[in-house]
Amino acid sequence: MNQTISLTPRPVVALLTDFGVSDGYIGVMKGVIAGITPEVHIIDITHDIAPQHILSGAWILASVYRYFPGREGGDQPGEPAQRPSSGTVFVCVVDPGVGSARGAIALHAGNWFFVGPDNGLFSYVLAEQPVHAACMLSNPAYHLSQVSATFHGRDIFAPAGAHLAGGIALSELGTPIDPATLQRIDLPQPTPRPGAIDGSIVHIDHFGNLISNIPLTMIPELFNFPQVRATFPNSGGEVSNRKRFFAEEPDNGQPFLYIDSSGSIGIAVRNGNAAQALNIGVGMPITLVISTK
Amino acid sequence: MNQTISLTPRPVVALLTDFGVSDGYIGVMKGVIAGITPEVHIIDITHDIAPQHILSGAWILASVYRYFPGREGGDQPGEPAQRPSSGTVFVCVVDPGVGSARGAIALHAGNWFFVGPDNGLFSYVLAEQPVHAACMLSNPAYHLSQVSATFHGRDIFAPAGAHLAGGIALSELGTPIDPATLQRIDLPQPTPRPGAIDGSIVHIDHFGNLISNIPLTMIPELFNFPQVRATFPNSGGEVSNRKRFFAEEPDNGQPFLYIDSSGSIGIAVRNGNAAQALNIGVGMPITLVISTK
Amino acid sequence: MNQTISLTPRPVVALLTDFGVSDGYIGVMKGVIAGITPEVHIIDITHDIAPQHILSGAWILASVYRYFPGREGGDQPGEPAQRPSSGTVFVCVVDPGVGSARGAIALHAGNWFFVGPDNGLFSYVLAEQPVHAACMLSNPAYHLSQVSATFHGRDIFAPAGAHLAGGIALSELGTPIDPATLQRIDLPQPTPRPGAIDGSIVHIDHFGNLISNIPLTMIPELFNFPQVRATFPNSGGEVSNRKRFFAEEPDNGQPFLYIDSSGSIGIAVRNGNAAQALNIGVGMPITLVISTK
Repeated sequence: MNQTISLTPRPVVALLTDFGVSDGYIGVMKGVIAGITPEVHIIDITHDIAPQHILSGAWILASVYRYFPGREGGDQPGEPAQRPSSGTVFVCVVDPGVGSARGAIALHAGNWFFVGPDNGLFSYVLAEQPVHAACMLSNPAYHLSQVSATFHGRDIFAPAGAHLAGGIALSELGTPIDPATLQRIDLPQPTPRPGAIDGSIVHIDHFGNLISNIPLTMIPELFNFPQVRATFPNSGGEVSNRKRFFAEEPDNGQPFLYIDSSGSIGIAVRNGNAAQALNIGVGMPITLVISTK
Repeated sequence: MNQTISLTPRPVVALLTDFGVSDGYIGVMKGVIAGITPEVHIIDITHDIAPQHILSGAWILASVYRYFPGREGGDQPGEPAQRPSSGTVFVCVVDPGVGSARGAIALHAGNWFFVGPDNGLFSYVLAEQPVHAACMLSNPAYHLSQVSATFHGRDIFAPAGAHLAGGIALSELGTPIDPATLQRIDLPQPTPRPGAIDGSIVHIDHFGNLISNIPLTMIPELFNFPQVRATFPNSGGEVSNRKRFFAEEPDNGQPFLYIDSSGSIGIAVRNGNAAQALNIGVGMPITLVISTK
Repeated sequence: MNQTISLTPRPVVALLTDFGVSDGYIGVMKGVIAGITPEVHIIDITHDIAPQHILSGAWILASVYRYFPGREGGDQPGEPAQRPSSGTVFVCVVDPGVGSARGAIALHAGNWFFVGPDNGLFSYVLAEQPVHAACMLSNPAYHLSQVSATFHGRDIFAPAGAHLAGGIALSELGTPIDPATLQRIDLPQPTPRPGAIDGSIVHIDHFGNLISNIPLTMIPELFNFPQVRATFPNSGGEVSNRKRFFAEEPDNGQPFLYIDSSGSIGIAVRNGNAAQALNIGVGMPITLVISTK
């Protein structure tokens, strides 16, 4: 007798925090998750968000979530929330307001699920994806039995994410809420004007590459314009080289414009550190000046 | 024909070391573990224990182990050691004596299993949990075939932990030993005296929060006393604010007392670093002075 | 009716990069991998290779790969490439040439599979293992649908590694190539001469231990010679203590020779940092001077 057995797909819980990895805080969250949903696959996005920096956490999350497994068969807005089955549950904790009256929430947005504080950490997701359902994490049956006032990552968010990944319906986790009432933070928006786009630096990566909030879609002909230069009003620096990839530039310490893997315009130095070379920090303005002839 | 198939639960091996993650030392331990017990779920607690700092490793382990899956059905002391089945195996390596005559051990304590050097790293666990069984890792059948003198994490502890997680009985790993003979280090104990409790700082976390060894259970009415202040004999600092959560304090750089998620009294600065603000390091004394009227 | 059910073994994908873990770059690679092969076990070797330092990445890989699960039943050179089944797939990305004409490759060498840029990162593996098959990653069916010019880790290497781990044959990933044409970098070789061996420092680890490229096999009687001393032509330092393990040396700040867990001669300071004590960096020469009487 031949038999085909389908095993439940292994659910993914992806973690993003500002906790660092030196204290056991992430380890203990994973222990809680594995205790609730043993078959889970836990993936670290990063735990090195600058402490309490909600915007930075929101940006990193936005740069990665689409690449994680989504639930098969999308939901239409208005449909009842369903189990995540094979979809990813993102448990995100950058939470300066832990213990205060700020909400603790779970969302089903696009093909993914999100758990964390209601403080704007999901602002990009909310701007980019339809929200099928949202709830407060108000059902204590899905918290640890003792909840501290200072570590909801361990006591509320990890258990809620693990239960979602294990098949509990989002609607079980607590009171439904209107997605329109969710907290959003101001996301820095690039502003086009004649002959230029004003933006800002939203991230500096491990290599010192500067990543702006100006998407290639605002300037798709980047490499066709006779001239494009980036100016930095704060520091007075200017960059006019454009390269399609890092090794196209000689190893000469000169910064150049490139298309970052996030889809935005970046500035790099080959085998060097653009942030240091240009003395630029996160949040600083950048202007792309474009000459079309 | 309907059929229900129970799969063996996925065993957890949790790792705590002072190896850092830059060299591949942790990666190679995980490769060894996955080769022995492919279905294992490996969880990092932390690898950033201060090099060779046994007390610090012991404290972090104590702050997390209870949150990891324990074996179903506890053991009574005196019962024969059993397989960990779904319980967590902690492989802990802070091991300045590697290669010397210090013992290499495995323990079944409480609902968990512990593998590592016999140098005091399990002192909190031994103080808090009944030990059902302990053995020396003297059976070379459960070591790698070649054992170096400088990396027992890879050659002895990882294989022993993996075999335990895969279902080998603890008693197979080597000669039984009397738990009373296991090494313990002096754990700093808080000392109550009239109107005060003398303790010490046992950990400084990623956020710069100071965590003392004074448990809330020694001063459960913390927030009801008219006055409680922390003094630091070494530095002369003093903290008298008390807050139930971080965001209760204005963002003013002032340190305050709070209840840490470990259950002990801590000192924090909202969106700041208390260790730097007060110039306090691990091991320094703290005194809580209590006024009951 | 008794039934024995064999589950597919869980394939291992091991990651080694210079991406750091602060940006989400590693997280997004894991998300891609888990989406393609949900049953995969992902293991981090390290992500802290010095940026763009191919030799350092090659050395760390060489120090760990043999400890990872290999496919059962070795291949003979000349046999057709087979599925990795339970073998480890190493996805390695230290890739200053990303986006340029440098090749992207997959190898079946020894009992393992390797995926990454063709820039010398696999030089030690190629020197140590027979290559059963190699191919360019030229089949876009196994890339992400959109491939950036700056992040092939996410767009090409992670998907290729995941597909291999999931059972796709290496030959499906692209055009076969002659292993003899693969890029190799110069590996620093130790040179014996009468009464001495000239080598170099190839790695400094988390503890500050200096690891040379002089294998114990070149000087197996290390501890039997009347005298062995290490000299550092660049810095003028000299080390003549020899210890079998770290704790054999008193805690006195004196550097000593030992046998590193990689099988090479190392220099350490007990509970200290030999690299700082001797002011030695990676790449610097070391000479072992041997007196046989």
